[in-house]
Amino acid sequence: MVAIAVDVMGGDSGPSVVFQSVEKILTVYADLELCLFCTPEAFSDCCSDLKQHPRVSFDVTDHVVSQDDWPLVVLKEKQRSTMWLALSALKQQRVEVVVSAGNTGALVAVSKYLIGLIPGVDRPALAVWLPDVRDGQHLLLDVGANTHCNSELLVQWAMLGCLEFQQKNHAKVPRVALLNIGTEIHKGGEYLQVAYQALKNSDLGAHFVGFIEGQDLLTSKADVIVCDGFLGNASIKAMEGLVSYLKEKSQFAECGRWNFRRLWQFWLSMWLRYSLKALESLGSEGAMLVGLRQQVVKCHGRSCANSWFKAIEFAYIEAKSGSKNNKSKQRMQLFS
Amino acid sequence: MVAIAVDVMGGDSGPSVVFQSVEKILTVYADLELCLFCTPEAFSDCCSDLKQHPRVSFDVTDHVVSQDDWPLVVLKEKQRSTMWLALSALKQQRVEVVVSAGNTGALVAVSKYLIGLIPGVDRPALAVWLPDVRDGQHLLLDVGANTHCNSELLVQWAMLGCLEFQQKNHAKVPRVALLNIGTEIHKGGEYLQVAYQALKNSDLGAHFVGFIEGQDLLTSKADVIVCDGFLGNASIKAMEGLVSYLKEKSQFAECGRWNFRRLWQFWLSMWLRYSLKALESLGSEGAMLVGLRQQVVKCHGRSCANSWFKAIEFAYIEAKSGSKNNKSKQRMQLFS
Repeated sequence: MVAIAVDVMGGDSGPSVVFQSVEKILTVYADLELCLFCTPEAFSDCCSDLKQHPRVSFDVTDHVVSQDDWPLVVLKEKQRSTMWLALSALKQQRVEVVVSAGNTGALVAVSKYLIGLIPGVDRPALAVWLPDVRDGQHLLLDVGANTHCNSELLVQWAMLGCLEFQQKNHAKVPRVALLNIGTEIHKGGEYLQVAYQALKNSDLGAHFVGFIEGQDLLTSKADVIVCDGFLGNASIKAMEGLVSYLKEKSQFAECGRWNFRRLWQFWLSMWLRYSLKALESLGSEGAMLVGLRQQVVKCHGRSCANSWFKAIEFAYIEAKSGSKNNKSKQRMQLFS
Repeated sequence: MVAIAVDVMGGDSGPSVVFQSVEKILTVYADLELCLFCTPEAFSDCCSDLKQHPRVSFDVTDHVVSQDDWPLVVLKEKQRSTMWLALSALKQQRVEVVVSAGNTGALVAVSKYLIGLIPGVDRPALAVWLPDVRDGQHLLLDVGANTHCNSELLVQWAMLGCLEFQQKNHAKVPRVALLNIGTEIHKGGEYLQVAYQALKNSDLGAHFVGFIEGQDLLTSKADVIVCDGFLGNASIKAMEGLVSYLKEKSQFAECGRWNFRRLWQFWLSMWLRYSLKALESLGSEGAMLVGLRQQVVKCHGRSCANSWFKAIEFAYIEAKSGSKNNKSKQRMQLFS
């Protein structure tokens, strides 16, 4: 059995979409157990099928972390919130992964406090898998756990990213790159240049690609791309904006008479849906919070039922592969 | 007559693509005069038609600013380079605009030194026009003239952006937004929060939208979007990367037998070319260097002949509208 805790309250779309996706995923994976953390109101809106499901348990509390809460305030005053209780369940090893769409700053702070960092890591980072044209996947981190960073953090995240990549790709040695606004060595802030030298001289050096630019985020030039959270978050969101732009451009009218134009638009929207599938998951599939002693998955705040489904599925796969590969042990020894 | 100086040597694709686009644009605009700044080698490779063209003059020099040159070194040692001489021509009012695809840092430094800043501006910014789905246009700045910035610069650039927008849209009052990684007031670095308050309390306040995120870069939520050069540059490049990704996904085989699949791919590539047309120009059409006393257009380093054509055309239109609207006078009075 794989047990996953879900903080039902964090997303912008409300608890109902989470319950929908939970119902669906329970029919797909027979060895999945879910602990849902929600408010009494959300619980009362939940359908009775789910309430009585043998592989679902509920933990009901009045307190919720909002998007506007400051992380320090959450640490002090929200110890009975759904987010806190879900992470406590992870700490007590009642579950293997937590999935939350809540306030990123608070999630990072509470995770650090309750679960703790891997020795040698100063701050966790959010990591997402990006596609390339040949259907490969590479890792981008940090995409928003930290707004500021320094060269040491970049090097730590590079090593964390390599571990994740190797776990997924069975020990293929990853090529590491730093995201910058130019490939020339003097480009970018000083911390980038220090990180460049540090990575070049590290154990990863032989596979260090150097600086890459935003144009290469969806190419196969590197397996692990490291940047500060501000830059990573902005890059992902800019791409999301372009995806929406194209979707709107190709909008297919749901009703109306079939003619050549409509047929064309229908094909177009199908193609776009197919081509952008890998990219839609950018924000929705869930980002891993790496650098922690246990596994936390961050779901996009704006997630729909489908995104929640993907995020929980992602957490399930992570938990399975984690226990098979003895990931937590490898993680703890990373910097020793 | 509109006179434009072109620094032929800056781009990655060499001088020949510049000469191609120059030949083409001279046939389109009969009142356009071009001063081309190049090396003796480039001059000798240039076709005789262009050399003898009555509306083209050449300025030949041995020195070139490379992409790796540090701005300070350029200021000290490259006073006979094509970039320097082109900007000198602007200073001496022999031309109305300079177009260059050279080293951005050097272009900013030499422009500041030779042409000077508008009183009240501390650093110039690179500004590009972005499209939205309804074929509107809004301005994003800075997209790469500065890697660091502060709240005062953001406010200055907001005002410069508003002037540009009003010039183009005949005094429609622009809505201003700050690009951030979240719309909540506490998101982002301190300088962003200070700029937020300053803009809210300024003359622009009534039309201040607040923070927007990367997803809204291609929507019509704001007319002028302000950010630091690192963020703006990264966002634009991430979108460029996605454009390349989609193009490669829909790649149309130039030769082969016509069948349904190929016909479909042909249509698809045509549609993409049409849909992404507005976006291709992101990097190629040319970015304006705003905040200077005179007009400088930065062309993308990777520009092809078509992009050079667009950049020179853009400079031509800017020069025309500038003299019609008495732009330079308005510019000088902006902060008085």
